[in-house]
Amino acid sequence: MHSLQPSAAKDRTPAPAMVDYEHALRILSALVTTLPAPDIEHVPVHQADGRILATALQALAPRPEADISAMDGYAFCCADIADTGLATSTIPLRDYVVAGDQPAPHHRGTAATILTGARLPAGADCVIARERVEVRNGLLHLAPSDIAVGKNIRQTGEEFAAGSPLLTASQKLDWRHIALLVSQNITQVPVYKPCRVGVIASGAEFAQSAPDSRAEINTPLLHAMLTRQGAHVTSRVVCSDSREDLLAVISELAEQSDILLTTGGISVGQTDNVLPVMEQLGASCLFRRVKIRPGKPFTLMQLGSVPVFCLPGNPGATAICAQVFVLPFLRSFMEHRQALMSFPVLHGRSSFSHPSLSDATGFVPVTCAQSGMETVFSLVPSKGASDVLCFSRADGLLLIPPGQTITIGDWCSATRFCSI
Amino acid sequence: MHSLQPSAAKDRTPAPAMVDYEHALRILSALVTTLPAPDIEHVPVHQADGRILATALQALAPRPEADISAMDGYAFCCADIADTGLATSTIPLRDYVVAGDQPAPHHRGTAATILTGARLPAGADCVIARERVEVRNGLLHLAPSDIAVGKNIRQTGEEFAAGSPLLTASQKLDWRHIALLVSQNITQVPVYKPCRVGVIASGAEFAQSAPDSRAEINTPLLHAMLTRQGAHVTSRVVCSDSREDLLAVISELAEQSDILLTTGGISVGQTDNVLPVMEQLGASCLFRRVKIRPGKPFTLMQLGSVPVFCLPGNPGATAICAQVFVLPFLRSFMEHRQALMSFPVLHGRSSFSHPSLSDATGFVPVTCAQSGMETVFSLVPSKGASDVLCFSRADGLLLIPPGQTITIGDWCSATRFCSI
Repeated sequence: MHSLQPSAAKDRTPAPAMVDYEHALRILSALVTTLPAPDIEHVPVHQADGRILATALQALAPRPEADISAMDGYAFCCADIADTGLATSTIPLRDYVVAGDQPAPHHRGTAATILTGARLPAGADCVIARERVEVRNGLLHLAPSDIAVGKNIRQTGEEFAAGSPLLTASQKLDWRHIALLVSQNITQVPVYKPCRVGVIASGAEFAQSAPDSRAEINTPLLHAMLTRQGAHVTSRVVCSDSREDLLAVISELAEQSDILLTTGGISVGQTDNVLPVMEQLGASCLFRRVKIRPGKPFTLMQLGSVPVFCLPGNPGATAICAQVFVLPFLRSFMEHRQALMSFPVLHGRSSFSHPSLSDATGFVPVTCAQSGMETVFSLVPSKGASDVLCFSRADGLLLIPPGQTITIGDWCSATRFCSI
Repeated sequence: MHSLQPSAAKDRTPAPAMVDYEHALRILSALVTTLPAPDIEHVPVHQADGRILATALQALAPRPEADISAMDGYAFCCADIADTGLATSTIPLRDYVVAGDQPAPHHRGTAATILTGARLPAGADCVIARERVEVRNGLLHLAPSDIAVGKNIRQTGEEFAAGSPLLTASQKLDWRHIALLVSQNITQVPVYKPCRVGVIASGAEFAQSAPDSRAEINTPLLHAMLTRQGAHVTSRVVCSDSREDLLAVISELAEQSDILLTTGGISVGQTDNVLPVMEQLGASCLFRRVKIRPGKPFTLMQLGSVPVFCLPGNPGATAICAQVFVLPFLRSFMEHRQALMSFPVLHGRSSFSHPSLSDATGFVPVTCAQSGMETVFSLVPSKGASDVLCFSRADGLLLIPPGQTITIGDWCSATRFCSI
């Protein structure tokens, strides 16, 4: 941990050394373990989709809760079917059971009509499917060779017993888990509260009154990207180059955020206020710049206990830093993991060549296509760190390891732009 | 197109023939093209994440809108730098330009301090980075060999020109597109209205007062699965075996839905009311049962113009039918595609063997793991069509083609459970 020294860019003392990509990930991994667990709240199960389960859950009841007919057919006790050596035996039909009934004990020597999903009368041990028999004059005609104890019966607890582990903590819930919770009549689910992320951009050029007014792209970009992951995002744009204005907004959002993101203002220009303000607020610097391209200016600070991702101002660079650093960190925090989650990696062949980026790790936008059994990555042309068109044409980012030249046909790794 | 004949299961005339999986997909593909385009509404760009763009959009302005400095540095006109043959030349510093300024035309014979993102003064044609020069006594010292026309300048329109196609209709919007829209100062986005899906379950066993009351799993399962895809889902559970009750609810939801789903009640039991009710309402049957396992009872009807997916009652079978039939159909409808979207397929090797399912197409839950450059599918044990635990342990469904035995190491295809 280092502290930035006094402020004006020119006479700032050397910042902590630039780190490489892997080193940055290790620092983030260590950082995420120092954060407190998110608070827990209870939500109705039908509102739990996309939320993170906060505690492990065990089965309250077995499933099925009782022996259940898997067929529309007839239930009886196999011992009651006389094997006469003939092709068919008969047994009188008596009771009728549908799903929802709590049937009386089985009347031995008879068969009961039973529908799919109905509870088996105690004492019956076989269900024969409707289409395998004939019913004439109140008698069921069936082939003794066609029956067996347990046939067409879903046995109590065959899916799981009471007390079985069902779900583990930190799972992101979707229809699969919701079905399981509902099957247990669980109506309220303990989940982690969403991560509160503050996102701040600043610059006089974002004022509508600026002579050369510019659209501020980074906060809506980050807002959409992080909200999709389940974060509660608060965005602020400081439309000035005033250090005081920026300090006020950073202070305010730091109070109410679990994670803070700034974009722009971390270069050496006179209007680059983020690092001086962070230093004025007493933040510590975990690293200053990363050997990646684009995205080199990315700097990681900590203000009190709040991690502050100081992202570059160019939207392309910001998007890439958010994908490869912020999203894994956010997910790890939201799921209360004890290390940085790695983003899902797709392996495939490159359809293009790319020069080495010397000691930098490169991230280039690519499309991912299936070709036979392989994934093929194709380069999406980019005009560099400020390009926002290239991503809308791409499916993900191909990683170019430091010092490595990519040749057509090389096996490579990419991360897909994902939504969940 | 066929019509179901009068009702009681036993004397129902033969339903349209069972179709195989591929045939079912072709019927769905034909059906989706007959549906009207979804209505269009305009939403603020910051609420457009996850929505489907309804019209193609062109660039309103070039990006960048002007020649912009890509660096903190100094702008000048290359012709003003005398190449004296010495290692350095000098030029006096005069103006100062930051992002947001509308700078006066460049003063020839001088250099201007310029910050990243600032608009280049007209007449300047090169930016040299701050760290490549020295400034002493108001004079910029630089190496003539270090300069070139256009250097460190983002040229007007180099990302895209005004009028360039930016986004095509039917794209699902996320941060990538939102960044692009915001860069164009677009504040309202034309998107398709969400698909309205009605989901209906029925059965006396779902009444809390039933002697053997059961949790109704399918509607919350489908609600979560389809809502995540952007549908507006209305769920109803009819807690009786009354045909009239079911008819009333189907009629009501058909009025207000683009697509209808029923679960259960499509077998031959006396409480299987869905098909008789559909027939009573004058629905036509597009196919009756599919050669898939599980999920064979799945039947496709059409009630007026509303497609009705009659799904099996077993939650495992319903989940699989929803994944392989309903989701592709829903997506095609929501994106107004002219054919059925195929779901994303993952290729990999099977780590298990599986017998042939005769002429049925099988879907078995699997985990998908990366092993070196390959994806490896591992079987998740399932207790069959009613099992809801198996999915929560799985990442997707492996497809077993009809008549095909799976052997360890075989290349297979699977669809991942996906969220977006």
